[in-house]
Amino acid sequence: MYSTRKRLTLSEYLSGILNQDRITLSKAITLVESSLSQDQLLAEELIQEVMPYTGKSIRVGITGVPGVGKSTFIDTFGEHLIQQGHRLAVLTIDPSSQKTKGSILGDKTRMEKLALNKMAFIRPSPAGATLGGVGARTREAMLLCEAAGYDMVIVETVGVGQSETVVSEMVDFFLLLILAGAGDELQGIKKGIIETADALVVTKADGENLKQARLAKKEYERALHLFPLKENKWKPKVRLCSALDNVGMDEIGAMINDFIQKIKSTSYFDENRSKQRLSWMHGHIKWLLESSFYQHPEVKKRLHRISPLVEKGDTPSMGMARLLVEEFLRDIKNNK
Amino acid sequence: MYSTRKRLTLSEYLSGILNQDRITLSKAITLVESSLSQDQLLAEELIQEVMPYTGKSIRVGITGVPGVGKSTFIDTFGEHLIQQGHRLAVLTIDPSSQKTKGSILGDKTRMEKLALNKMAFIRPSPAGATLGGVGARTREAMLLCEAAGYDMVIVETVGVGQSETVVSEMVDFFLLLILAGAGDELQGIKKGIIETADALVVTKADGENLKQARLAKKEYERALHLFPLKENKWKPKVRLCSALDNVGMDEIGAMINDFIQKIKSTSYFDENRSKQRLSWMHGHIKWLLESSFYQHPEVKKRLHRISPLVEKGDTPSMGMARLLVEEFLRDIKNNK
Repeated sequence: MYSTRKRLTLSEYLSGILNQDRITLSKAITLVESSLSQDQLLAEELIQEVMPYTGKSIRVGITGVPGVGKSTFIDTFGEHLIQQGHRLAVLTIDPSSQKTKGSILGDKTRMEKLALNKMAFIRPSPAGATLGGVGARTREAMLLCEAAGYDMVIVETVGVGQSETVVSEMVDFFLLLILAGAGDELQGIKKGIIETADALVVTKADGENLKQARLAKKEYERALHLFPLKENKWKPKVRLCSALDNVGMDEIGAMINDFIQKIKSTSYFDENRSKQRLSWMHGHIKWLLESSFYQHPEVKKRLHRISPLVEKGDTPSMGMARLLVEEFLRDIKNNK
Repeated sequence: MYSTRKRLTLSEYLSGILNQDRITLSKAITLVESSLSQDQLLAEELIQEVMPYTGKSIRVGITGVPGVGKSTFIDTFGEHLIQQGHRLAVLTIDPSSQKTKGSILGDKTRMEKLALNKMAFIRPSPAGATLGGVGARTREAMLLCEAAGYDMVIVETVGVGQSETVVSEMVDFFLLLILAGAGDELQGIKKGIIETADALVVTKADGENLKQARLAKKEYERALHLFPLKENKWKPKVRLCSALDNVGMDEIGAMINDFIQKIKSTSYFDENRSKQRLSWMHGHIKWLLESSFYQHPEVKKRLHRISPLVEKGDTPSMGMARLLVEEFLRDIKNNK
């Protein structure tokens, strides 16, 4: 396959990124996301080259159910971070982006202030299975942003499905946005997520909502109390904020700084980053194994034939799985 | 490897199971759980042979956090089911069983009444990764129990980690046990699980607890109201029970019967079972692919060498994953 889009050379990509050129960064992320094999090879070389310039940012994950006000929060909080002297990259993982398309424009419109701010770089990440599973391309985009001098990276995801787990394993600080008084305290509260979160932020704590938000804060604080202390010894905090009134942003920023300082004073920060790098590798290995299996033409044919038998119960699921994997490995061996 | 344990022949296993002989059933489950390759082959033949006799039971999954009273509930509820004329098999998945061992005795002691009842068959399932991932062996044990004439199968799991998702994909009816008034409404409430549950049962609704249990019931009913209708059109119910006072068991039994009748009157029951059989196969395929990769001697050597480099950040996670998978497939090809 031949792409008509003009591809830069490795050194053009590299120097552009290290010179903090936004357009080159954008093109590099596009390269990383490409499914063309010649792009993939170049992308891998590029990632290898930028490795020494990565890892220096603070990585913050933000999640919450739709309607909680993620974009508005990031728009306002991001501006605060930039005022504090940060260069901010915002990467969003949208599990639905495969279907809806056009989310690039959508994301930029969603964060009006940041979209106009030259210290901010906003980029949605496709979450498609064709691109290495949820998060694979986002992780590489994050590394590219770091090499391009962004010292604060926000990875945003919709709190649906498995993407928030992936994100929590990608960042230093994980923030869960929560809506108070939506009449449903269960909304967005998954125990697993709360256990992962380093902070819960109750959004829209303004106007008529304020009272309920304060109540919710107390409830969550009580609830968090019952959780065992996290590995990093950090006690998760609950905060209120209002993007509308621009309230709470400085406090949240200070909290994240405090967190980073605390964990950097121990070995946890580096250990956690090391662990994450290793788990990225294993996650990607699993994805690659499955891809090579399911994309194999012979496997596709067999699955087509066998699946109806398994569905009907004519043949056992486990035994058939073993047979299919054995035949796949035999095909590889026989160079089929 | 040679096992000193006396192995039955395929036809001995088969006729024993079809004759509802408990001891043969027990031995057959042990065979299925064995990691000896000659046992595995025999186990697969056996599963293939029993397939026509499977699928006729009602499969109920039960989960809940430790302390919610799962064993006590199953002990009392199981007795009720047997009084209604059922033959009951109870399979428990204990994710911790690998570590703690000896859970077989533990499980039997935990269900004192059932353990003495000839119409009940209690069996813990190991959840070890060495045995095909969580649930793989439990699914086959379930099929064996069905072939042995158990028309009601309860699969019990601790509500920790991913095992409850696996179980919900294994059964017809999924029941979440909940503790009221534990001062922490978050306990055991994962939105994902509540969405999967066909019923919530508030346990220990007796004595001083009764008032709080009733309150909790109302809260959960309100909360469930906000969830979208499930694919099977069933509206999840909330029930109270007390194993101590033997209260609520008939109501819960009737609810499950009602559910089964309703979904059997549509195409959902069969469709769901078909979907489950197919997803068991795919789940097992993934597990087998990973096993063949991670158990490969060359892969082990490479991982040993490469992992520290990835941890340090000297080499990119994704690129290294690709390399490792490529080399693995090349090894297979070259018959290494």
